[in-house]
Amino acid sequence: MTKHTTEEPHATYSKSRVEALSDGIFAIVLTLLVLELKVPQLPESQVHSSSALAHMLIEAFPKFASWVVSYLVLAIIWQNHHRLLDVFRHVTKPLFWANALLLMGASFIPFPTALWGEYPNNPLAVSLYGVTMIVVTLFFLIIRMVAHRDPGLLKPEYDFATFKRGTAQVTIFGCGVYLLGAIVSWWSPLAATLVYIAISIHFFLPGTGR
Amino acid sequence: MTKHTTEEPHATYSKSRVEALSDGIFAIVLTLLVLELKVPQLPESQVHSSSALAHMLIEAFPKFASWVVSYLVLAIIWQNHHRLLDVFRHVTKPLFWANALLLMGASFIPFPTALWGEYPNNPLAVSLYGVTMIVVTLFFLIIRMVAHRDPGLLKPEYDFATFKRGTAQVTIFGCGVYLLGAIVSWWSPLAATLVYIAISIHFFLPGTGR
Amino acid sequence: MTKHTTEEPHATYSKSRVEALSDGIFAIVLTLLVLELKVPQLPESQVHSSSALAHMLIEAFPKFASWVVSYLVLAIIWQNHHRLLDVFRHVTKPLFWANALLLMGASFIPFPTALWGEYPNNPLAVSLYGVTMIVVTLFFLIIRMVAHRDPGLLKPEYDFATFKRGTAQVTIFGCGVYLLGAIVSWWSPLAATLVYIAISIHFFLPGTGR
Amino acid sequence: MTKHTTEEPHATYSKSRVEALSDGIFAIVLTLLVLELKVPQLPESQVHSSSALAHMLIEAFPKFASWVVSYLVLAIIWQNHHRLLDVFRHVTKPLFWANALLLMGASFIPFPTALWGEYPNNPLAVSLYGVTMIVVTLFFLIIRMVAHRDPGLLKPEYDFATFKRGTAQVTIFGCGVYLLGAIVSWWSPLAATLVYIAISIHFFLPGTGR
Repeated sequence: MTKHTTEEPHATYSKSRVEALSDGIFAIVLTLLVLELKVPQLPESQVHSSSALAHMLIEAFPKFASWVVSYLVLAIIWQNHHRLLDVFRHVTKPLFWANALLLMGASFIPFPTALWGEYPNNPLAVSLYGVTMIVVTLFFLIIRMVAHRDPGLLKPEYDFATFKRGTAQVTIFGCGVYLLGAIVSWWSPLAATLVYIAISIHFFLPGTGR
Repeated sequence: MTKHTTEEPHATYSKSRVEALSDGIFAIVLTLLVLELKVPQLPESQVHSSSALAHMLIEAFPKFASWVVSYLVLAIIWQNHHRLLDVFRHVTKPLFWANALLLMGASFIPFPTALWGEYPNNPLAVSLYGVTMIVVTLFFLIIRMVAHRDPGLLKPEYDFATFKRGTAQVTIFGCGVYLLGAIVSWWSPLAATLVYIAISIHFFLPGTGR
Repeated sequence: MTKHTTEEPHATYSKSRVEALSDGIFAIVLTLLVLELKVPQLPESQVHSSSALAHMLIEAFPKFASWVVSYLVLAIIWQNHHRLLDVFRHVTKPLFWANALLLMGASFIPFPTALWGEYPNNPLAVSLYGVTMIVVTLFFLIIRMVAHRDPGLLKPEYDFATFKRGTAQVTIFGCGVYLLGAIVSWWSPLAATLVYIAISIHFFLPGTGR
Repeated sequence: MTKHTTEEPHATYSKSRVEALSDGIFAIVLTLLVLELKVPQLPESQVHSSSALAHMLIEAFPKFASWVVSYLVLAIIWQNHHRLLDVFRHVTKPLFWANALLLMGASFIPFPTALWGEYPNNPLAVSLYGVTMIVVTLFFLIIRMVAHRDPGLLKPEYDFATFKRGTAQVTIFGCGVYLLGAIVSWWSPLAATLVYIAISIHFFLPGTGR
């Protein structure tokens, strides 16, 4: 028995409104990241000093680096999200909620990014960044499981067997590389940082998949 | 006498622009919630300490919990809003303003969420969260009243009698459960928190209406 | 001589992208207003005290009031903007820039709102709110002047003479009421506040134009 | 070998979703700029004093000036972005990433704007604003290079030779004027400020290209 929706003849959502909501959230998260870059506070006697300002900006270098990495990672997520949603004919209730979870994961990213930028040598801070990315990868998996359970949701031009193989590849690869970073950071936060940067460059370079 | 609008032949609004404004506001509110999650300030001597950071993150647990609950609640509100607007043929002035009130209620949610996350054991703070949700439910009621007073606004595929029954159900249920939380919090803020969490899980689970 | 645009055969802009940019800005400004509502800081010994929290929330009442008024004012501005843009066939360079100025005015509103909410008894703070609204009204006038100078931009269903009469009415009324508030605040900030509230109620009530 | 995308028959992106993401980011950046305008903190004894408030607002003049200039610069960038994207038939992977870089540059602008507004007499702060704009101009160049390498991406109504000439003009002009500002600021931050203001007025005036 459906309780509150008896007035509704359609069970599905407007795909374009779900995409608009998703694009809006991605746009905001991409832009909010820059709010973590705070203007350094120079003492009154040094407000005209370029070298004092340069010194403070260089000290803030980890924040700039974490901003660039997170921006690129979010652009990759947007791209993957765009491709994945394109596969579906329409948006059902399970797909809506799986998508809402993914957007929750994406909108959380500014927090571990800020943590990483603030404490670049703290193993837990750097590790949590990788853990967040693993969770985001699992939320992508949940969206894909919606299609696995209801293959009729796929547009006819997509092949179900190929889609299922893609699910395994994306999930294993995404969880694997970020798990590597999350573990390595307990030995060396710097090495984990290099892993995260390598991952973004991997996706960013022309011709390297996804 | 219409004063400033004599140049306007159409009395109605572009439904797609009203939806775009609504989706934009929901996207922003969903994303702004994360701004309440502040990076903890470790003393200079402990910036490399994972246990000091873990301790502060665990202490901030109520903020993370209130973020998750509010995110899910807002996704439910978006979903209900999406379904409700779908019922209308076009947007009239009363519908525009009823919708603007609902969006005002939705955009207010980050404030009681922050209050609840900051003071999870304060009866007033926890109670105000429920009160806000009751107000949002009443703003939904106002949108529905627009259709009650002008049934011609409903698309032909929707049945007016069913729609009216839906209004009663949604309003009584929504006000009831949040009123319960708002009252219970004066005895036990923790119990009220569990009520709020139960409400989001109720809507979140597949097959449970709305 | 056109310098950098020789590759462009069309002189006009995509009206739907200009509307999307405008709706995005309105959605963000409407939502950012709530960021001014800060969670009050209770002393450690009173975090469980409902009466201490109630006291601080009541003290913050002017902030809540200024938030509600500014939200309603921005919804009115969105509505007027929506109606005005509907009049134009397409977006030319002068219209793009006139619209950009209006959006600049709208995106400025959180600042005088915060000023008014912080210093509700300071004549200058309350007066600046009215001055901002006068500037916004004048930016609306600039958009209308674009059509006055190029009546061919109006859609055929709009009558130019009626449109011009509308320009005079809207400008005189909008500047008049806010000028009244801006002046009165030098005698009594509270009286000016009532003027601002009366203006929003005027537009909000069904049947009162605009 | 394409790794994770074997399920995807189309190599291109939905141009309308890429535009929606871009418009969302521009809308948010344009609006976030105003968050740098903080309400001045008056001492408790002067909250009713208009002259104390006026004094603090006048002191904050550089912040208001940098806000206006950055708002206009971002509107110019949106306009150029709109015109440039219009040239392309569809969005390929290289175009998506070139566009993502440009949006990263645009979303960074609030930071140098805040730096400039906070330290208007600091040569490095004022110079960095110009450097940021040079980087944004180079990101525009990267988008154009995508079309240079794959002229088939241009819509048939655009002439490739004219487009290439436009690339040279836009890049040389944009880099040139902002390089001038970035260099001049080491002698006189005020003179550099006037250069930046002149650039925005140049684009803003009707009939002056771009």
